[in-house]
Amino acid sequence: MTNPILAPELLELINTGDTAKLQEAVEAVHPAEMADFVAALDDGDVWRFLSAIPQQQSAGIFSHFDLDRQVQLASGANRQAMARMLEELPHDERADLVQRLDPQVAEQILPLVARAEREDIRKLTSYAEGTAGALMSSDYATLRPDITVAQSLEQVRVQAPTRETVYYIYVVDGEHRLIGFVSLKDLILAKPSQLVRDVMHQEVISAKTDDDQEAVAHQIEKYDLLALPVINGDQRLVGIVTVDDVMDVQEAEATTDFHKIGGTSLIGVNLKDAGLALLYRARLPWLLVLVFMNVFSGAGIAYFEDTIVAVASLVFFLPLLIDSGGNAGSQAATLMVRALAVGDVRLRDWFSLLRKEFVTSLLLGVTMGLGVMLVAGFRAPQIIVPVGLTMVCTVLFGSLVGMSLPFLLTRFKLDPATASAPLITSIADIGGVLIYFSIASWWLSDTIKAAGN
Amino acid sequence: MTNPILAPELLELINTGDTAKLQEAVEAVHPAEMADFVAALDDGDVWRFLSAIPQQQSAGIFSHFDLDRQVQLASGANRQAMARMLEELPHDERADLVQRLDPQVAEQILPLVARAEREDIRKLTSYAEGTAGALMSSDYATLRPDITVAQSLEQVRVQAPTRETVYYIYVVDGEHRLIGFVSLKDLILAKPSQLVRDVMHQEVISAKTDDDQEAVAHQIEKYDLLALPVINGDQRLVGIVTVDDVMDVQEAEATTDFHKIGGTSLIGVNLKDAGLALLYRARLPWLLVLVFMNVFSGAGIAYFEDTIVAVASLVFFLPLLIDSGGNAGSQAATLMVRALAVGDVRLRDWFSLLRKEFVTSLLLGVTMGLGVMLVAGFRAPQIIVPVGLTMVCTVLFGSLVGMSLPFLLTRFKLDPATASAPLITSIADIGGVLIYFSIASWWLSDTIKAAGN
Repeated sequence: MTNPILAPELLELINTGDTAKLQEAVEAVHPAEMADFVAALDDGDVWRFLSAIPQQQSAGIFSHFDLDRQVQLASGANRQAMARMLEELPHDERADLVQRLDPQVAEQILPLVARAEREDIRKLTSYAEGTAGALMSSDYATLRPDITVAQSLEQVRVQAPTRETVYYIYVVDGEHRLIGFVSLKDLILAKPSQLVRDVMHQEVISAKTDDDQEAVAHQIEKYDLLALPVINGDQRLVGIVTVDDVMDVQEAEATTDFHKIGGTSLIGVNLKDAGLALLYRARLPWLLVLVFMNVFSGAGIAYFEDTIVAVASLVFFLPLLIDSGGNAGSQAATLMVRALAVGDVRLRDWFSLLRKEFVTSLLLGVTMGLGVMLVAGFRAPQIIVPVGLTMVCTVLFGSLVGMSLPFLLTRFKLDPATASAPLITSIADIGGVLIYFSIASWWLSDTIKAAGN
Repeated sequence: MTNPILAPELLELINTGDTAKLQEAVEAVHPAEMADFVAALDDGDVWRFLSAIPQQQSAGIFSHFDLDRQVQLASGANRQAMARMLEELPHDERADLVQRLDPQVAEQILPLVARAEREDIRKLTSYAEGTAGALMSSDYATLRPDITVAQSLEQVRVQAPTRETVYYIYVVDGEHRLIGFVSLKDLILAKPSQLVRDVMHQEVISAKTDDDQEAVAHQIEKYDLLALPVINGDQRLVGIVTVDDVMDVQEAEATTDFHKIGGTSLIGVNLKDAGLALLYRARLPWLLVLVFMNVFSGAGIAYFEDTIVAVASLVFFLPLLIDSGGNAGSQAATLMVRALAVGDVRLRDWFSLLRKEFVTSLLLGVTMGLGVMLVAGFRAPQIIVPVGLTMVCTVLFGSLVGMSLPFLLTRFKLDPATASAPLITSIADIGGVLIYFSIASWWLSDTIKAAGN
């Protein structure tokens, strides 16, 4: 891909109003590429550029701006131009845009949009976020069952320019109920005289408007689809979700899980653009919760103050021992959260995985216990046994908590990714402190008594 | 989607050899669905089922088995049947399968495969893992530029049954160099008498065989493509990567990053199927590294033994203070690793993000410092100042390390996700211990001296 146009040259074409050259430039460059250049211009220049080229192409470029830029442009002075743009944009994208607009701005623009399109926007924006309804687009191609393949190809030609895809075409009855599906490939391969009803697939994989968007993504991935039809409660076709939308959903869902497991709640924002206040609010809650949870580990230590004063060397190994539990627990939680998210593991697998986790973490604990005993042997030989034993127990404790918590959250219909690394670390801290000093007090009881006297 | 067939009934059809009913069943159910049922049968039954139905359909079902099951089936006794299967499978999938086979098994099967197909497998398996070459398929559709649209539709009909997709068709010259691209939609919309060369797009977005698979995924996502052509050093078309393959890549890459940031190295295995030894090996390395890194925090504490003995209440807040640094650091690292992975942030953004991180974490540290001073006020008022000050400093230290480490790793061409939660936790431990006891020794120097006398 070459980029024959650089932003300054483009700006000059806009300023001189050279429409012919602008159109030439637009045809030579992919809309996504062009959008990257144009987005960097001033709002006024962007609108002058967009109105200088054919409407369909300007919509193609506009739809490649990121949503924040789209909102900026829509909120500017060009109400009329924005209304025309809404009429041309893919139906799912314009619904997302209108949803993000300031209500006052939307109220000014929507009356300028053609009635049918306005109705469509209203419908698409009415579905709850995260559902198939909110994700779908209403610009799909349809056919009736009782026409021939030759006629259907004619109809596809007519529909093609305004539809999100014509590679999958849905067959509907007089009530707009979904009764079948043909691919453009099926139509090309069929005899022109055959009826659509005889060519179509009757078993159509579909989603309901209130299905979760992750379920929709899983279906498209499992069945290798380019699009999935969405029906309402009456079996009527109301939209389609296309594979490119689903890729965005999957990336966004992975990002959300990623952020959650790291103990933050930053969602749907480019980190570079995120403001201070947003970052502060996204990070503070878990950190504060964990400060107050750690009050318990502090109280645990206070309870064992005599032990610590008698054998101060116990404190040398405190960070290592409690963090090893936290680290092993974070590992287990991370593996489990991701396996639940991609569907490798289900709720019913808990018990068999628990047994496996028990053996794995016991082996890990013993290995690490031997490692730390080696270190303790040099520095503080009298506590070598409690340190080694504690390592085994804390790794086991942290791991079992870390692997079970995501299941427990799923069981209560909560997000398993809430089992974040910071949360597991704090739980492991409390457990680790109690385990360590209990074992040490018991093993060193003679020394402690001697010190007390 | 209804499932009219259950595994036991299917088994009976196989055992009675009722080919007609089997074919009927296969036509009523999606191949992905059917694969779920069939995969659970014994190897022998699977092969009997697959040979009872038309070859193309049996390949469609086989290709929905997961790779491990495919390897099992290929490694069984049916060399001849497996060779026929390889001839029918999508070219990218069969290359992946052959790559995973035991070399001895592959040596026995490949000679039974038709010569042209064998050559194709050899070529596709020769590219390095993780590149466009290893991901691509060679069953793409092509056209010559100097035929009419009507003729091209004829050719598409001929090619359709054996190609991964005919929605994107690539135009090549006599040397098989990529010179253009048309979509099936373009062909349908064009006049039948037009020449392909006049209809085709000349600016084709393409990848090179050695491009990274993540870059390929980004291109397909950015340009909303159904497929991306892959060319070799001579501009010759050698394959295509389709959107469904890219979805799998993106999911796998996200999983790998997810596991890495949790401090494990489990790659490409379903957690449910992962054996004990594999899990142990995937988790032990980081845990052990961190055990030995924590020796330093232990040494730090030993250095301050006098301080601890003099003011034992300092230990109450040790887990909280060092873990707060680790938690804030894990948050920062997680945000940064994901932003680098999805391309929201680049290397050159480091300095501006560092400044933002400094202010954000300072605010977080102050808030948490006030929180912990509230707690310390009740339990140990004489150490309220060092505890609060330490909280601010450790949160700042952990955050700056956590956000910078992924950049540093990227700078040295290492994987940013290596900045795992356990690694950040350990670094924060060492820093936290030194900060805490340094501040405390200075603030409480009179008390410590008094205790020493």
